[in-house]
Parts: sequence; structure tokens; C-alpha cells
Amino acid sequence: MAAVVSDGLGFTLLQRDPETHARLGLLRTAHGTIETPAFMPVGTQGTIKALDHRRARELGVQVLLCNAYHLYLRPGIRVIEHFGGLHRFIGWEKPILTDSGGYQIFSLQQLRRVYDDGVEFRSHIDGSLHVFTPEGLIEIQRTLGSDIMMVLDECPPYPAERAVLESAVQRTLHWAIRSLKALRQTEPRYGYGQLLFGIGQGGIDVELRRRCLQELCQWDFDGFAIGGLSVGEPTEAMYEMVALSTSLLPADRQRYLMGVGTPENILTAIELGVDLFDCVLPTRNARNGQLFTTRGVINIRNARWRFSDEVLDPGLDHPVSQTVTLGYLRHLFMAREITALLLATEQNLAFYHWLLQTARQKIREGSFRHWKRSLLETFQHTKVEATSEIPPCP
Amino acid sequence: MAAVVSDGLGFTLLQRDPETHARLGLLRTAHGTIETPAFMPVGTQGTIKALDHRRARELGVQVLLCNAYHLYLRPGIRVIEHFGGLHRFIGWEKPILTDSGGYQIFSLQQLRRVYDDGVEFRSHIDGSLHVFTPEGLIEIQRTLGSDIMMVLDECPPYPAERAVLESAVQRTLHWAIRSLKALRQTEPRYGYGQLLFGIGQGGIDVELRRRCLQELCQWDFDGFAIGGLSVGEPTEAMYEMVALSTSLLPADRQRYLMGVGTPENILTAIELGVDLFDCVLPTRNARNGQLFTTRGVINIRNARWRFSDEVLDPGLDHPVSQTVTLGYLRHLFMAREITALLLATEQNLAFYHWLLQTARQKIREGSFRHWKRSLLETFQHTKVEATSEIPPCP
Repeated sequence: MAAVVSDGLGFTLLQRDPETHARLGLLRTAHGTIETPAFMPVGTQGTIKALDHRRARELGVQVLLCNAYHLYLRPGIRVIEHFGGLHRFIGWEKPILTDSGGYQIFSLQQLRRVYDDGVEFRSHIDGSLHVFTPEGLIEIQRTLGSDIMMVLDECPPYPAERAVLESAVQRTLHWAIRSLKALRQTEPRYGYGQLLFGIGQGGIDVELRRRCLQELCQWDFDGFAIGGLSVGEPTEAMYEMVALSTSLLPADRQRYLMGVGTPENILTAIELGVDLFDCVLPTRNARNGQLFTTRGVINIRNARWRFSDEVLDPGLDHPVSQTVTLGYLRHLFMAREITALLLATEQNLAFYHWLLQTARQKIREGSFRHWKRSLLETFQHTKVEATSEIPPCP
Repeated sequence: MAAVVSDGLGFTLLQRDPETHARLGLLRTAHGTIETPAFMPVGTQGTIKALDHRRARELGVQVLLCNAYHLYLRPGIRVIEHFGGLHRFIGWEKPILTDSGGYQIFSLQQLRRVYDDGVEFRSHIDGSLHVFTPEGLIEIQRTLGSDIMMVLDECPPYPAERAVLESAVQRTLHWAIRSLKALRQTEPRYGYGQLLFGIGQGGIDVELRRRCLQELCQWDFDGFAIGGLSVGEPTEAMYEMVALSTSLLPADRQRYLMGVGTPENILTAIELGVDLFDCVLPTRNARNGQLFTTRGVINIRNARWRFSDEVLDPGLDHPVSQTVTLGYLRHLFMAREITALLLATEQNLAFYHWLLQTARQKIREGSFRHWKRSLLETFQHTKVEATSEIPPCP
């Protein structure tokens, strides 16, 4: 079964780990090839928060996640069209995946109404009324020119009644098929092919999630996302759903676990056969003063670092990790300097880059399982906190 | 008359502009030589706001201004001493000038009391009570290890009664002499020489300012600052005070105009014989969305830039100036992204670097006056706004 876009783009499975379900692969896009497993930093509005693209490139970011919903509302799709697409608008020449914004819209609660045809919502910026349909969202992503487009889906909250989950699964499937049809009936706007990923829903209901994915897998998507997880369910239930999903998904397509997660979540999901990840955790927690390092998690505001002239992370080959001291970064956080946010963001993305790069290397060498176990021992004594968003700046 | 520190440090006058009072010079410090005229970005708490040191180096920053008062209160002088001085604490190996904090203390209004011996104040952070004396501040700056130390002075507000100005001049002179004596009675903490600058006060009272500087010039400071200006007085009165000051100051010592200013202010003061500047304007205004460019001043939030795919400043050889578009930076400001603050800060410091570098080149070539006139014509149609500080972040 050929992928939707057959001009050399799409996923190639390179190698399987003999001990686990971990896999090495390449995802070819019109703006370059992504080595998987890969982590996508979140750049919702066209930038990673507190980091410019030059630093993102230096940190080895392979692919940026942007959000169609946010960019559609601001700066507006006509602005991005005028620039000739999102890559040119934001000045990022590497791959971009655009999330549909379904997750954001379904988080709006009071501001949206779901119909079988699509979803009506009010802008969180100015209250204006908008409608997203599966076809409309393909059109928007054609105009954005993202390398990887996501279908519109319905992401139910956790916990949710079975009837709510079932209805979300039905709608998600229906919309996915309409999205694929819309893709085939439209042309790329900028002359290069765009991939389309379907999304599986079903909460933590085994039967619903199985039904959703089995149906979805009959359609010719370039990749499949595991959606609706990391929304409050127990971690073990999430892993169970991931394992179920990867057991059902075709080996020759990309697998993307949306919105996940901690280093432990990511390594476990890689072990279960996932290829692609995104999460606000490294960047958001950076802005809250939580550092990910090869020695574990550090809360930099802690008074114990006041006199520390140790560097942030001697285990990482990045200038910030190697030269900025814990004592200085703590000072910048206590003094509420914006520079603190930049430095912490760099450290955390350097760590995530190292994590995924090392995971790929260990899969290649056949020692992934052993490495994962020893790394997680480092992390088990430190706690990753779920932190909430800080107010925007200025 | 030898300078206080005679180990090769201090100012060397290289060249005078035949048409104006502009001068080219070198200020040798223990952490490197500063080509003057020079602009010092403000890094009050040990960092330029919204810019890390790597970028500051890339932007050609020659010397960083930090604030003894702020650093004394936070992280505290014992922390910086533990690190072996401010350079090592913040990881900046080039020259540092520390402002005494007199200006900040005298801005505290309700929180301070001035005695002949020094000034008592309450911390703006935790309300704790502190006393700064001229000798104590030399001791603090010895511990900071700044390359250029400033004396404690009394900076009166504008407007001020003549009696207030006169008393401030008397105290400033008295304190300057005590500072010099304290310098001579103490040793550097880290084995390298530190320069000490005196500060002239007197508001815009010609007689008082003359008296203050004539007295100050009899003492062997490494440089002289023109203080108490740019505090609300008319620009012409400021220029008059600068002209008076440079006519009185010895040619073989550095001249530093504190807290100034706009591109026009700086070029005019260079023309009048000033060597060194600092100001929050380029960095603060950047965070408020005001860009300095070789084509004039731009308010990036203006709707006219929404669709603009022009780069920020084709006239500057800096990646941000050459690649970031007006439309994208406007979007980042409207979306309240921290990245907007970084990019705008880089643009403005790239412009200030270009301004001073070009000024030096034009003095060297003997065409400073002509160049200054044509550049200011570019700026006369655009207005530099005095913007207030935005709330700290996060």
C-alpha cells in the first residue's frame, strides 16, 4: 500500500531493537529527513518559547511543532499566505509539523460546540466566531505548508463517560477519512508534498482504542498518532494504551505519541515502538526553574545552589550546560531576569536532544534496554513536576 | 600626574577630530582594552536583560555595566566573593564597570536617609536596613573585582533647589576624596588593578557644576563621569553641561556620560568630547517593541508591519537584522512571545554597536561631523520614546 504522497517522502524503518519494540527510522519530508525516534520542541505560535531559531538549530532540533489553530487566529492565515507559507514566515527551513488545534479547541470548554460536520469555537484572543471542518483544516494546513499535517480530531477529557469516548472515536474516524479525501482533492500550495497523519482516540478504554485504530489503519495515512493520552490518566494506563496501539499500527508508518512527556515516558514509549514525540515539558518547566540534566532533575531556585559553582550539566556538550553555573542561574531566576528563561530552556532542550540522540545510538548498538534502565535509575530519586503555564511576557 | 593604578591600565588618547572635540582612545583594563568612544549595555544584575553573554560577545559588547547596589543585595556580596569575583560569578571575561548604585539609592525616596558619612537605605527586595559609605562601597567593589569602580555620589533629582544641588555637590566631592583614599589603602582582591572614576554633579547649574569638576580634577582619578544628567532636564541644558564638563576635564583621562542616551544624544556628546556611555534605552525600548535601525526608529507593534517581509535592518551585518522579518517580529510581539524580546534586544544592541563603531571609524577618517549630520537626518523624522520598565518576567 503506497503512502499518500509517493514522491519519496514518508517513513522508512531502518532497524528494530531485538530486545524491545524500539525502532530506528527515517521520516523524509520536503524540508529534510528526521531521524527517529525524535522529539519535537513545541513552537505553538511559530517560535519555541524563549529561544530563537538560531539556537534551536544549534541544539540540533530536527522538527518544530506549530499549531494551526493558534496561527490561523494570529497572525491570521492571510499573513502567512502572503509570506509564502509558514517556513518563510517564521524563517525556519527545517521540517514543521502542525498540530490541528483540536486539542486546544476542545480545551476551550465554554467557547466551542461540536457538530458532526466540524467544531464551532470562539477565539481565545478576541471572541470572534470560527468553524473548523476536516476539509477546512486541510486547506489551512495547505496554506501553512507544514511538512506534516494532522487531521482534525475530537480529544475528550479525562475521565470521560464511555458514551462520550465512543462518540469522540466515531467523530474522529469520520473526520479522519474526510481529511484524507480532502488531501487527495487538493494540491500543495508551494510545490512540495505534505504528509498527513491520522489520530487514534479512545481514552483508556481498550476496546474503543482498538476499534479506533483498527479502522484508522485501513486508511492510507503517512503516519498515525496516539492521541488523547497524557491528559491526567495513570501512567500505567497510558503505557497500556501505547502498547496496544503500537501492536496494531503498521510497521512501515510513523508512530507519534502526542503531548508526551517526561524522560521516563519517552524512553518507555520508545521501548513500546513509538517514533515521534512532542511535549511542552522541557520548555515550560525550564521557565519555572526546573532543569533536566544527565544527573537528574534540579529545581534551580533551591537555596542549596546559591553558592554552587558547578556547571549546569558537565555531561552535555553544549555551551550553556558546560559554562553556566548553578549559582549564577539561580541568581538570575531569583532576580527574575528573562535571561534565566533562555538559559534554562537551552539546558532542557540540550538534554532532550541528548536523550533522543543517545536512544537512537543505543538502539543501533542493541543496548537500548540496558541503557534505559540505568538512566532511569538516575532519575528515580528526582521528581519531574507538572508545572502550570506562567503568565506571558511582557 | 600618574593615574592611581599605574600598571599599564588606564586611558590613552589616540586621536582628536580636527573639526569637533571628538576623540579616539583606548581604555586599558585588567580584562581587556576598550576602544572609545564606547557604549556599555546595562547588565544591572549581572546580565543584559533578555540576552545571554554568548550573544553579547557576538554583538561586540566591549564592556558590561553592572550595579554594585543590586548585586550587594542579591545574590549578596558573600556569594560573589565565594566565586572569586563578579567576572567568575557571571561568566563574563571582558571588562566590567560597576556603578555604585548611588543613583538607585537616591531614587528610593522613602527608603533612604543621607548623612555626611554615607547613606542609609532599606532594600527594595526585603526592606532590610543597610548603610553605604564611600569606603564601604570601595570594599564592595574590591570584592566584586570590577575593572572600573565608581565612587559613591549623591544624585539630586531634577528640578532641585540650588541649596539641594549645592549640598549634593559638597557631599559628592567629600565622598569622592574619601573613596580615593580608601582605594589607596586597600589592595585588589584578585591580583589585578582596578580603575576608579570620580563623578561630577551640579544639576544644570553652571557655577556649581564648574566648581564640582574643578575641585574633582585636582584628584587623581582614572576617569571622570558626568553624573546627574538625563534625569528630566531639557536636552539643550544637558548638552550645555556636557560641553562645560569636557572643557574642564583633563584630556588624558576617560570621560563618561552616565545614563545617556539616544543615538542623537550620544553622537552630540561624542562631538563634545565624551568617551563612554551607558543607557537602558536600547534594551528597555527593545522589550517595549521599539527598534533602532539604520533607517530610523520603528515601533514594531504598528499594524503597518503585519504583512511586511522586509528584514529588520539590511544595513547591519548581524544575523537577526539580516534574516528576521518585520512581519514575523511583529507577530511575536502581538503573541507576547519571550522570543520577541530576545530578537528586539539583539537588533537594538547591534545598532548601538554599529553606531559607536562607525563613530570611531569616522573620527579616524576625519569625517565624523559630516557623517553625524547625515545620520541624524535619518532619525529626525522618527521619534525615540522614553518608555517605562515593563514588569519583570516570569
